[in-house]
Amino acid sequence: MSSPKLFIPGPIDVSPATYAAMSRTMIGHRGAEFEALYASTQAGLQALAGTARPVFLATSSAWGVMEAAIRNLAQKKVLNLCKGAFSDKWFDVTKKCGFEAEKIQVEWGQPIDPEAVRSKLQEGGFDTVTLIHNETSTGCMSDLQAIAAVVKSFPDIMLIVDTVSSFSAVPICMDEWGIDVLLAGVQKAMALPPGLAIFAVSAAAMERAASIKNRGYYFDFLEFEKNAAANNTPSTPAISLIFGLQHILQTIAEEGIENRFARHRSNNALIDAWSQRHGFEHFAPEGFRSVSLSCFHTPTGFDQSAFIKALKTKHNLLINGGYGKIKGLTFRISNMGNETNATMNELIAAMDDVLSA
Amino acid sequence: MSSPKLFIPGPIDVSPATYAAMSRTMIGHRGAEFEALYASTQAGLQALAGTARPVFLATSSAWGVMEAAIRNLAQKKVLNLCKGAFSDKWFDVTKKCGFEAEKIQVEWGQPIDPEAVRSKLQEGGFDTVTLIHNETSTGCMSDLQAIAAVVKSFPDIMLIVDTVSSFSAVPICMDEWGIDVLLAGVQKAMALPPGLAIFAVSAAAMERAASIKNRGYYFDFLEFEKNAAANNTPSTPAISLIFGLQHILQTIAEEGIENRFARHRSNNALIDAWSQRHGFEHFAPEGFRSVSLSCFHTPTGFDQSAFIKALKTKHNLLINGGYGKIKGLTFRISNMGNETNATMNELIAAMDDVLSA
Repeated sequence: MSSPKLFIPGPIDVSPATYAAMSRTMIGHRGAEFEALYASTQAGLQALAGTARPVFLATSSAWGVMEAAIRNLAQKKVLNLCKGAFSDKWFDVTKKCGFEAEKIQVEWGQPIDPEAVRSKLQEGGFDTVTLIHNETSTGCMSDLQAIAAVVKSFPDIMLIVDTVSSFSAVPICMDEWGIDVLLAGVQKAMALPPGLAIFAVSAAAMERAASIKNRGYYFDFLEFEKNAAANNTPSTPAISLIFGLQHILQTIAEEGIENRFARHRSNNALIDAWSQRHGFEHFAPEGFRSVSLSCFHTPTGFDQSAFIKALKTKHNLLINGGYGKIKGLTFRISNMGNETNATMNELIAAMDDVLSA
Repeated sequence: MSSPKLFIPGPIDVSPATYAAMSRTMIGHRGAEFEALYASTQAGLQALAGTARPVFLATSSAWGVMEAAIRNLAQKKVLNLCKGAFSDKWFDVTKKCGFEAEKIQVEWGQPIDPEAVRSKLQEGGFDTVTLIHNETSTGCMSDLQAIAAVVKSFPDIMLIVDTVSSFSAVPICMDEWGIDVLLAGVQKAMALPPGLAIFAVSAAAMERAASIKNRGYYFDFLEFEKNAAANNTPSTPAISLIFGLQHILQTIAEEGIENRFARHRSNNALIDAWSQRHGFEHFAPEGFRSVSLSCFHTPTGFDQSAFIKALKTKHNLLINGGYGKIKGLTFRISNMGNETNATMNELIAAMDDVLSA
């Protein structure tokens, strides 16, 4: 039997068509063919990010760019907005890089309050803010537009936003909302294998980076900008993944971005309806729930581990049993990527089958 | 027509079997299935590196680890051994990271003289040395064992060695020779798509890293060691590439490492014999020539560009027209990876056909 189909919140199921695209004859990366491949990704990525800026392709997972954004932008003090495993860790990573940092810590599952950000920034001394739009560990999506508006009201404070599990699932307007660094991985809603990070940098953030010493080379934003102008990357790119990215962007263009967003909402609503039928409660409050994944409290007395195991053994489908300090206390179901109402209903039928056993 | 088959010195041709392995059903990276995949790569990688240390898998190209090794080990002053485009650049990257650095610069194409390294280190003040074993831009391979012996005679100086285009093509004995950080990409002699770097770190270097502040997170050697103990990676790994790596390591085990080395020597000798028939002169001196690629002077009056173009247009095969400041003045032919005497002879017949036209 093949490995179970993934409904965990990333990596997720990769389609045969994507793998076929990734299996194209290998090409060199210092020639016209690669430059054409690179160029072909830009319009689609820019549309998803809501930006006219170039979208850079980094050979790394998202954490590489999450750290890089700090190293390229922070001079004084960083404010990390913490609300789950990944956003909390960003605070630790900021300090590991040697930067001064403070955080706003909310309870896991809760969103970031824009007014709390305003109050904290009014204390002064900050020059950089980090936010995870859609905290994958809790299924909670903060109000990115409102938080960006607050940060933007403070001149010279840069906003770095991780959209790892929201990118291509919900509308994002980088330029209009005033985001300085927008980054994402590709193994979430883009439904590619992991190994590639994408990011865009505002003109103001690029200017800031130019004034920062010791940015290094591998993640130097200025190197990315210089190479992007020639449709290339500073270091050897993950070519097969970029072939896959090109394919996914074509499918998104064919589907239509708005239709894609609607499909994610619709798939997510099916899981919500399923949870209501069974009395499972969302971990995140209404109005702040991710549309790309759902995180539920494990009910008292419910053998979550047996549920997940049976779903895997009997139906070869995999959901996730929680992450970090809420492992076991929560479980998560992804509806990202290429899933349709039909495939979500297959999952639901399988889960119902297990629950009725 | 598909893209030309690559005989450039990386990335190189990737086999259908490798792509098939990379197209296995996606799996999560925080579970037993990934841990088994990760564990399955260790013995093969350790045999190729000549080490009993764990071999880490970084989601990056080699430059990420080249920079990381500096950030994890340098305290005082770095000595960069420079002999071509990539080794020269390592000096620049060291300074971009904010470290003090000096270099030994030899003419492009020439190897590093171990005694020159000794003299330089005797000046004192250095704690880290960087060497590119096989300089891909010039086709020159330095005497790694001799240079390592010199560096090892200085207590507390760490030796970082890039084996990007020699790994799996020639014997490397990390532990016996006293290499502190050994690193490679996978898109050269391993014949995988780019996007994954592999590296191993000596116990002494790990101890040094533990004493270094501000290593950050993404490339923190201690994070790699901690996660490797659980057969995992600090950040989301490039899973499809690791499936490919597992496949390649199986083919290497089936072929036998010594047979693989012999095949590379034999393929390389075919290109050497071809060059002699046509009077092409090697860029690197005898005794210091790479066995994974050949770099030749472009003869006066020889239209190198037309030669390469005709080979591509008429035979759909691609060789390389030189790199960096010797672009046009040299041309390079790779015999890395899965090539056989038969496939090398196909290339040679095609080149002869073009030359006779």
